[in-house]
This record gives sequence, C-alpha cells and structure tokens, in this order.
Amino acid sequence: MNPSPISDLSRLCVHTITTKPWLLEQAIDNYAAAGVGGITVWRQALAGHSPSAAGERIRGAGLSIVSLCRGGFFPARDEASRQGAIDENRRVIDEAAALGAPLIVLVCGAVPGLPLSQARRQIADGIAAVLPHAAASRVKLAIEPLHPMYADDRSAINTMSQAAAICAELRSPWLGIALDVYHVWWDPDLESEIDRCGRAGWLSAFHVCDWRTPTTDLLEDRGLPGEGCIPVRQIRGWVERAGFDGFNEVEVFSKTRWAGDQAQFLRDITNWYLQHV
Amino acid sequence: MNPSPISDLSRLCVHTITTKPWLLEQAIDNYAAAGVGGITVWRQALAGHSPSAAGERIRGAGLSIVSLCRGGFFPARDEASRQGAIDENRRVIDEAAALGAPLIVLVCGAVPGLPLSQARRQIADGIAAVLPHAAASRVKLAIEPLHPMYADDRSAINTMSQAAAICAELRSPWLGIALDVYHVWWDPDLESEIDRCGRAGWLSAFHVCDWRTPTTDLLEDRGLPGEGCIPVRQIRGWVERAGFDGFNEVEVFSKTRWAGDQAQFLRDITNWYLQHV
Repeated sequence: MNPSPISDLSRLCVHTITTKPWLLEQAIDNYAAAGVGGITVWRQALAGHSPSAAGERIRGAGLSIVSLCRGGFFPARDEASRQGAIDENRRVIDEAAALGAPLIVLVCGAVPGLPLSQARRQIADGIAAVLPHAAASRVKLAIEPLHPMYADDRSAINTMSQAAAICAELRSPWLGIALDVYHVWWDPDLESEIDRCGRAGWLSAFHVCDWRTPTTDLLEDRGLPGEGCIPVRQIRGWVERAGFDGFNEVEVFSKTRWAGDQAQFLRDITNWYLQHV
Repeated sequence: MNPSPISDLSRLCVHTITTKPWLLEQAIDNYAAAGVGGITVWRQALAGHSPSAAGERIRGAGLSIVSLCRGGFFPARDEASRQGAIDENRRVIDEAAALGAPLIVLVCGAVPGLPLSQARRQIADGIAAVLPHAAASRVKLAIEPLHPMYADDRSAINTMSQAAAICAELRSPWLGIALDVYHVWWDPDLESEIDRCGRAGWLSAFHVCDWRTPTTDLLEDRGLPGEGCIPVRQIRGWVERAGFDGFNEVEVFSKTRWAGDQAQFLRDITNWYLQHV
C-alpha cells in the first residue's frame, strides 16, 4: 500500500545539478522563493565560491543544506592515483564541513577493465581511509549504489546489498547509504534491502526522479517522478517504514530540461513532487 | 585464472542479428565459408522462409543450429494479451521444431508501469503454460536475464538469481538459462550463480559480446569481445567449470557495425573471438 501524498514542500530538496543552467545564487533564491525546503549542492555549482560564505547564504535564505555531491571515485590502476583520490575526498570533507553540509554522497568509482572485485576492494579501503577525517569533521559519507549500466566507469557498487556490505564491514555512525530510485528500482530485493538498511541505521539519503521509456541517453535523460515507470511513492513508503524521515531529493539530469526555461522546470518539479512522490 | 584460448571456430556460433544486413542465405553461406560452427537464427531473418527448408539449408551448409531467437514477452496489462503471448510462444516452439533448433531464447518481457513483481509472476506463469508444448516438441526454453537497464519494457528478469528461481519453481528438463555476458557481467554474485546454475543443469546457452565505454545507445552499441570492459574469457572459464560445453555465441547489436561491410565484420568476429573469448 502506498503512503499518503505529501502535502507541502518542507521535505523537498532540489539538487543544484537539476537546474544546472542556474548559478548557485539563482538556485538558492529561486528554490527559497518556491518554498522548497532543502538544497543539495554539487561541487560544480560551488566552484569559485567560498564554501562557508555559500553556506551562510543558503541558510540565510531559509534553506536546509542536505548534502554535498559528490565524493568517491576511489579505484585506480596505480597506488598514486588511489592516494590522490583519498586526498581529494579529504578535501571534499573539508568543503562539506565549511559549507555546513551534514552529508557527502559518494559515487564510488570504477575503471574500465579493472576487475570489479578489485575495484570493490579499493572502494571499501578508500572509504576506510577517509572515515576518520569524516568523523572528526562531523560529516557523514553516504555510499550511493549506482545502476549496473554505470559499472564500467562510474561505480562498481551497483546494489543496496553491496553498499550494505561495506557499511557492515566498516561499521561507523559516519557511514551510510544514499538510495536513488533511478539506480535500484529494478532490484528484486529492494524492499527487503531497504528494510534491513533502515533498521541498521544506514539509510541516509533518498533521491527521486524517474526512468523514461525509451531512455535515449545513459546519463542525461532522466524524468521527474511521474514521467516514467518507477513506483516512486511506493518506494518512499518502504523508505519511511524503515525509519527514514529525511528529505526527498529531486535529482534529475536531463539535456531536454536543461535546454528549457528553468523557472518553468522548477514549477514542474514542485507540482510533480506533490503528485507523484 | 583464465581458461586456455580457443584454437578453432568449431564452437563459435554467430547470431544472424549480428550481421543484420545479410539475408539468411548470405549469413548461412558466409558463416559456413568462414568456418563458423553454428548459427542462431533470429525470427526476423526467418520471416518469409519455410522454417524446415531453412533448417535443411543450414544443416546442408555444415552449420549447427544452436537456437531460435526469440520467444517471451509474457507480461501484459490484460488477460487477452497474456493469452496472446502464450499462443505466440507456442507458434515459436513450432517454428523451432520445424527449423530443427533445439532451444529458444526467452526475452521475458516487461510493461512500463506494470509492477515488476506482477510482471515476474506473469512470466513464470507464461513459461509454465507453454512448457508442456516445448517438452512435446523437444525444444528447450532458455530464460535470458536481461540487463537492469531493460527492466522498463523488455525484461523483468534481470539477474541469474531470478532466472534460477523460475527454473527451480518449474523444474523441467526443457527449461534452462541463456547467459549473455552483456546483461550480467556486473553482478557481484555472477561466479557463484554460474556455478549453482551449472550444477543444477540449467546453463543452456552462452552469449558473448562486450560493453563499450562510453556506450552511446542502450540497445545498439555493443562491441565484439575485447572491445570493452567485460572479462569475457574469465566468464567463459566459470561457465565451462560449471559444466557447460555448448557454443560460444557472438550476439552483437551495433548500428556502427551494421553500417559497415559485413564480410569485414565477420573476419573481425572470428579474429576477436580467437583472441578474446
């Protein structure tokens, strides 16, 4: 049974990448004016800004900072590159702390031709290496399982079960999972994995969008919830039943939407959110 | 450890769709002249032919008929359409029997917006409904788990584990699994699932190709083994260790390759096969 519809925008968070053509300032002002409750800041949008000043501006506009996107990309063919990734993730943690973001989403990484089993080991080791700095900075890291179609060069972590295995191995209050419906909606074990991860305290972020039929681009053809075949509201029900009470984050990459009017797109986001999430 | 390279083309099977621009007769003659051991016939290539005459011609050219592609597409929103799919699959079985193909590959189907759990139930029920006719016709059905990126409208069966669950439920010597590396290479449980399915006698077909980075089309941008990141030879080793000794079937959908010279493509297929499978 699906949960009740959502009646307001207080738990809606929008990712800056969703309205990619907007500068960070435009995103902040427009989200706040629309009544959106939260914002997830992408590092591209933050480039050239002082993270702490950006954080002040966001909070001053009345928005909650939900997370910083993104860290990760741990696997590499040589030790120097793996160490470089660890150093970079420590910088991302500093950036999140300065911004005032309580959480960093990890796109864990993959290298074409590097065996997935090795990449998976390197990911767990990389996260273990940066976790103490995350804890000291009071910033949580959230492993985002990515759709198996990204297993070549974006993430070797492709299911909730794999993300949970790393959480179980590293067992830290500063490590959790970011569930994006786009990546895991097809998983036959989704409901039970959500239940298990929620009970373990690992469900740390919930991203929504939709899978369009046909999908014409592997990266940038996502739809708003309701524009595709993902049972977003049902999955929200599972997530909430598992104890999650955070934001519902709209993260849409869409060439088509980015080419259009962003103010209209934001109106669509809030309307479709209330109707379909 | 990877298995030894393959030294000849006797266990190479090519799918007619791989060289889609060729008529069936051209495919037969050219595959046979190249020393290819087997052919999997797609129904599109068979259209307008008498299946029994086509079968005679193929055997006369010295090729083994490995399978007929494809049956399936069982889920639908209404009972009449589901019954229509069952009837159609019985016709595919008749066609395979007339052709002399020992096996039919099942692309199980999915309907955007139809809950995956329902689609999965309808698939098992649909297969159960046609299995007696398959057995009477001495034609095996092989469930092909499809990549999760096809869960919207092509197949709600996306892992070896799901295919195995249907085999375990229906338990028939006329039901097995067609493993295509493209669909399952990312699965963290792939090696153990292959082992389990092989021991159960369910591994019935082995399809090879490769995942290109970047992949520019969800359907028609596959590579030959060696052109991408899938450890094809390693997976062949797992499959053979699990007892499989059938053909290695090259099934490549590629707009780029189809636009080129098919005779050259066939030379590439045999060369890359010996080097990378």
